[in-house]
Amino acid sequence: MQLPLLPPFEPGSVWLVGAGPGDPGLLTVLALKALSEADAVVYDALVDERTLKLARPEAILEFAGKRGGKPSPKQPDISRRLVRLAREGKRVLRLKGGDPFVFGRGGEEALALVAAKVPFRIVPGITAGVGGLAYAGIPATHRDVNEAVTFITGHNVSGEVPDNLDWPALARGAPVLVFYMALKHLAQIRDRLIAGGRDASEAAAVVSHAATDRQRTITTTLARLVEDTEAAKMEPPALVVVGPAVRLASGLDWLGAMKGRVLDPDPLKLKARREAG
Amino acid sequence: MQLPLLPPFEPGSVWLVGAGPGDPGLLTVLALKALSEADAVVYDALVDERTLKLARPEAILEFAGKRGGKPSPKQPDISRRLVRLAREGKRVLRLKGGDPFVFGRGGEEALALVAAKVPFRIVPGITAGVGGLAYAGIPATHRDVNEAVTFITGHNVSGEVPDNLDWPALARGAPVLVFYMALKHLAQIRDRLIAGGRDASEAAAVVSHAATDRQRTITTTLARLVEDTEAAKMEPPALVVVGPAVRLASGLDWLGAMKGRVLDPDPLKLKARREAG
Repeated sequence: MQLPLLPPFEPGSVWLVGAGPGDPGLLTVLALKALSEADAVVYDALVDERTLKLARPEAILEFAGKRGGKPSPKQPDISRRLVRLAREGKRVLRLKGGDPFVFGRGGEEALALVAAKVPFRIVPGITAGVGGLAYAGIPATHRDVNEAVTFITGHNVSGEVPDNLDWPALARGAPVLVFYMALKHLAQIRDRLIAGGRDASEAAAVVSHAATDRQRTITTTLARLVEDTEAAKMEPPALVVVGPAVRLASGLDWLGAMKGRVLDPDPLKLKARREAG
Repeated sequence: MQLPLLPPFEPGSVWLVGAGPGDPGLLTVLALKALSEADAVVYDALVDERTLKLARPEAILEFAGKRGGKPSPKQPDISRRLVRLAREGKRVLRLKGGDPFVFGRGGEEALALVAAKVPFRIVPGITAGVGGLAYAGIPATHRDVNEAVTFITGHNVSGEVPDNLDWPALARGAPVLVFYMALKHLAQIRDRLIAGGRDASEAAAVVSHAATDRQRTITTTLARLVEDTEAAKMEPPALVVVGPAVRLASGLDWLGAMKGRVLDPDPLKLKARREAG
C-alpha cells in the first residue's frame, strides 16, 4: 500500500485527532501515522479498542473519558495534561471519537494549547452523524429527500437539553435531524420536535455503537421513539435520526446485505409512484 | 505503520468511497486499500490529483465529473458504467470528493447497484463542511457558540437554490450554517438568510479549495459576503460559513500558525469579558 507524503509529527507538539466512529478502517492515514509515532496517547471513551491496539507498544496510554460511576477528568485537567506531556518533549496524540470539532470539545483543548504556546495540528475524523449512520445504511443527505441536514447535541455542557436553540425553527428547518448523545433526554427531544411542527408519524431511527462490532439499529416513528428505544434496551453512545433518510436504509443497508439482508432498489417507492401515474 | 484488519475488496464488487476534502492524509485506511487494489477507479472532479497518484499503476482511471465547458456524464450513465465494470469482474472503486452521502449522490449510485444486484460497500469520507473548514481553523461546532450546525447545499439537482427548504426556519435554527457549492447563488442565499432573521453584521467566511494546496479563506460579514467574495475572486469549490464559528479562526488556524500566524487564545473575548464583568 503506497502512502501519501505526510507531515512530520514533531516532539513537543500535540496532534488533536479524530478517530472516526469506530471501525479502525475509517481511521485517516494521518491518524494511523500519529498512532504509530506518538509517545503518549490521551484517549476518550468513544475510541474503539481495536484502534488503541494500533498505538506503538512503547507509548503511554492515558484514559481521559467518562467511565460509568467514576468521576471523569475535568476539561481543564485534560488540557493541562496535554501541555505538560508536550513540554516534556513528547509527541502527544489526543485521540477523540468521531471528529474533534463536532461536539468533541477539540476547540477548547486547542485554545489551551495556544495559550501555552504548544504547537499543534488538527486532524479531522469521520463524524458519527455521517459515517456511523452510513454503517446503518442511512445517508445524511439524499437528493430526493433532503437538501439540508442538521446535527444537534442531545445534551449541553451541563448535561441538559440545549436551551439556547430555537427548537421550532430547528424542527421545521432541515428535513433530516441527527442527534448526538440523545438517549438521556429523548422524551424532551421528541416533545420539542412535535411541538415545533414535526409529524409524529415521521420515521426515526436509533443507532447504537455505530460502526463497531456492537452496532444495533432500530427504526420507528417519532411518536414511538421513546417506547421503542427503551423496549430495545438501546445503549449509549447512540445517534438518533429523524426524517425521511431513515426510510432509505431498506435500500442502502450494505452491511446488512453482507449478512444476507435483501435490499430494496426503490426504498422511497418513487418508481412505483411514477409508474402508478 | 501497523494496519488494522481490513475486509477483502472482492472482484465484481463496487466500493463507493469518500476521498475527503483534499489532503491525501485525510484518506481513510479503507480508501487507501481500495486505491491500491482497484482495477478501475471512476473519480469526480473534486478528487485531489495527489490522491489519484496513489492508485495502482495498472488501474483504469475514468473521470466522471464536471469539467468547465464540457458536458458532464449524466448520473444514470455513471451508474451503468459502474455496473458494467463490476460485471466484467473488476474491483471497481467509485471515488468521490468528501463523503459519498453528503451532497455526493452516493445513495443514488448505490441504489442502481442494488437494482443490478452488484455487491457494494460504502466507505465514508471526511466531509468538507467539517474537515475542510478545520483546515481553515473554523470548527463546525464549539461549546461556547453552537449546539447545532446545519449543512445546506448551495444548489439543487436543477442547479437552482433549493426551494423545498423552509429558509426562515433554517436561518433561525442552527447558529452555524455551512453551505456547500454556494458561490453560484451567493446573493440569493444572503438575501434569504437576512430576510429569515439573520443579522447582516454576522460573521461569514468563504473557504475555497479547502484542505488542498490552493486553499484560500476570506472572512467578512453576511452583508458584505457577495462583494468581498467577488473582490477576492474566490473560485469553486467553496464552502460558505455563517455564524460565530468564523470568529474562532483567529485562535484555531493551526495551518496558518505553521506559516507564522500568531494565534489568539481568547478569540471570542470570553476571558476578557469575564474579567471586565
